[in-house]
Amino acid sequence: MKKERFSFKLMNTDPCGARLGKITTGHGKIETPIFMPVGTAAAMKAMTMDQLKAAKAQIVLSNAYHLNMQPGPDLVEKLGGLHGFMGWSGPILTDSGGFQVFSLPGRTVDENGVTFRYTKKSSQIVLTPEKSIQIQNSLGADIIMAFDECVEHPTTHEYAKAALERTLRWARRCMEYHKNPNQALFGISQGALFKDLRQEGIKALIDMDLPGYALGGLSVGEGIENMKKVLDFSAPCLPDDKPRYVMGIGLPEDILEAVERGIDMMDCVIPTKYARSGTLFTHWGKIRISNREFRNDKFPVDTNCDCYTCSNFSRAYLHHLFSANEILGATLTSIHNVRFFLGLMEKIRKSIRENRFLKFKDEFLQLYHRRNKKKTNRKKTRSKPTRDQ
Amino acid sequence: MKKERFSFKLMNTDPCGARLGKITTGHGKIETPIFMPVGTAAAMKAMTMDQLKAAKAQIVLSNAYHLNMQPGPDLVEKLGGLHGFMGWSGPILTDSGGFQVFSLPGRTVDENGVTFRYTKKSSQIVLTPEKSIQIQNSLGADIIMAFDECVEHPTTHEYAKAALERTLRWARRCMEYHKNPNQALFGISQGALFKDLRQEGIKALIDMDLPGYALGGLSVGEGIENMKKVLDFSAPCLPDDKPRYVMGIGLPEDILEAVERGIDMMDCVIPTKYARSGTLFTHWGKIRISNREFRNDKFPVDTNCDCYTCSNFSRAYLHHLFSANEILGATLTSIHNVRFFLGLMEKIRKSIRENRFLKFKDEFLQLYHRRNKKKTNRKKTRSKPTRDQ
Repeated sequence: MKKERFSFKLMNTDPCGARLGKITTGHGKIETPIFMPVGTAAAMKAMTMDQLKAAKAQIVLSNAYHLNMQPGPDLVEKLGGLHGFMGWSGPILTDSGGFQVFSLPGRTVDENGVTFRYTKKSSQIVLTPEKSIQIQNSLGADIIMAFDECVEHPTTHEYAKAALERTLRWARRCMEYHKNPNQALFGISQGALFKDLRQEGIKALIDMDLPGYALGGLSVGEGIENMKKVLDFSAPCLPDDKPRYVMGIGLPEDILEAVERGIDMMDCVIPTKYARSGTLFTHWGKIRISNREFRNDKFPVDTNCDCYTCSNFSRAYLHHLFSANEILGATLTSIHNVRFFLGLMEKIRKSIRENRFLKFKDEFLQLYHRRNKKKTNRKKTRSKPTRDQ
Repeated sequence: MKKERFSFKLMNTDPCGARLGKITTGHGKIETPIFMPVGTAAAMKAMTMDQLKAAKAQIVLSNAYHLNMQPGPDLVEKLGGLHGFMGWSGPILTDSGGFQVFSLPGRTVDENGVTFRYTKKSSQIVLTPEKSIQIQNSLGADIIMAFDECVEHPTTHEYAKAALERTLRWARRCMEYHKNPNQALFGISQGALFKDLRQEGIKALIDMDLPGYALGGLSVGEGIENMKKVLDFSAPCLPDDKPRYVMGIGLPEDILEAVERGIDMMDCVIPTKYARSGTLFTHWGKIRISNREFRNDKFPVDTNCDCYTCSNFSRAYLHHLFSANEILGATLTSIHNVRFFLGLMEKIRKSIRENRFLKFKDEFLQLYHRRNKKKTNRKKTRSKPTRDQ
């Protein structure tokens, strides 16, 4: 059976600019805006792929950096690529490793690539644009990412400009090296918080005519207001007929802001990471299931949720699992959080189809913020790199 | 709907004495010989109840001692009993706590019951026969166990006799206190390795006309040969028309020996406990999935296994999950091990139905021991109390 080629179709644009679309890949279609759960090391943390499917995930993100280290791309390729290896027959996206190496202490960057040590004791490793594509070709994801230099926040205009120009030269090297027509190579825009750099970068990427464009260098501690600014001056520069991906986003409130600004794809470790520490998302805000108030609570985590956990278990049972340090607690809370995020995306898509996204957003946030009136310490939440999932 | 009353029907006896039977409970039927996976704290470790159902479990064991400490029997009762609380609609058996308190350091035993501390810092708790039944009544399992005194191995005839007589007096107190007709109370025989005590104890239990009888005080480090001896002189004293349960058994080879001696029910934490440390059961013996030999192994754990793990993943993938310290590793290996034990019981039942149990046992063990020629250090394995699952 011939695989379908990668394509994107814009189905509707809400008056506010939010977009409804459909991505086609060789492993199935993806409705956008979409949230992509992260299975860094070819595995969702505490969830099977069957449970992920039941939560209605449409695409999974995995990571070239981690899989290069363990078990290695050649082995994954030999065992059927990522799809066969981890038992997921739907679409997969791999990140290039740019974001991961950026956060390693002692890494050095030059024109060739990034030099780093995996652990303090291991020997030096050089990751180059070509190497990253080679790894991602072996892994066989449907969407792969160009190797970029993600700069720290805050940074200077001078450094951000140098890093952006290097990222663009690397993107061209990625494009030249990449020859697999079954994999769509997305470019990544950098430029920190600088409007001129962001717009210059996007323009250069558009000239390369890639199948999709991502905004990188966000979710590094810049805060939601800065993220909104970057999206405000970046999104209008992106072409209508290609998917737009903001990397590393985020909390429900971040997702809503990104969608409002015309973003189609997002990914984050938050649903599973929060779940393992007992923080659960509900339509009435976040709850900490280990809090004493839930000890006797006979209700499900979220009465509006259709996940396996909410259909079968009480908050009191989840509270008990965390008290008893049962692994099952992490599984049941991860199932719920992932389904919550994917259910939110379903509601978002419905509202865009009906041209009422802003109304939906307001209603959702009004209910969502009722419980958590204290301002979330976003900076702390958002500055943690995904590599530690 | 009126609940079915507890009953046992003997369907066939193999020429060697192995028994095929059927237990009826208010929550469904159980085909015997049966292995009961252990979900100590109202949860299977690293498995959902859906996954346990898919592994074809027919009954789950949970523990009065642990659930009394956390979250408490009253809460469980309020939330629908154990069945509702942990989302398992099939039969459940609870252990009385006798085995668990026996292994606590500093516990004291007198006629009234056992006095102990849950942790070094917590206040003294007294567990009596009445209290154990009260807890188990609240938990609402289909089969509950009398509160017994499990003695250490080795012990003297004098102490074993005193403990046995106390256990029998306690069994009568349990019987008098227990009034719930939906729960079948099983008696537990003690008497260490002493033939006269074991036979005296069983005779006294039979006089109480309980719905089932268990052999306790095994799996405490006595070794397989001693276990076989105790079964050899105990099983013939038990009535044909009641189920016979050996507590805390065991490895596949132990299960086969118990079944050969006419035992109908067994339980052990081994499948899930071994799974979490990466030891997997196969028809060719045990394997350690973290061993380097499995790094590139494209085959499933056991080519003869129909579990979710073996149907979808390679040994190399499981090896990778353990290397990457992914929680999913514990889940997938637990699913396999539990299914392996339950599949073994299915094969055992088929062989008894066809009056060829000993042939099956020989064939199974011949293949099973091919890989592990080194003698397993049984003593070490078997002396670990279940409370540490």
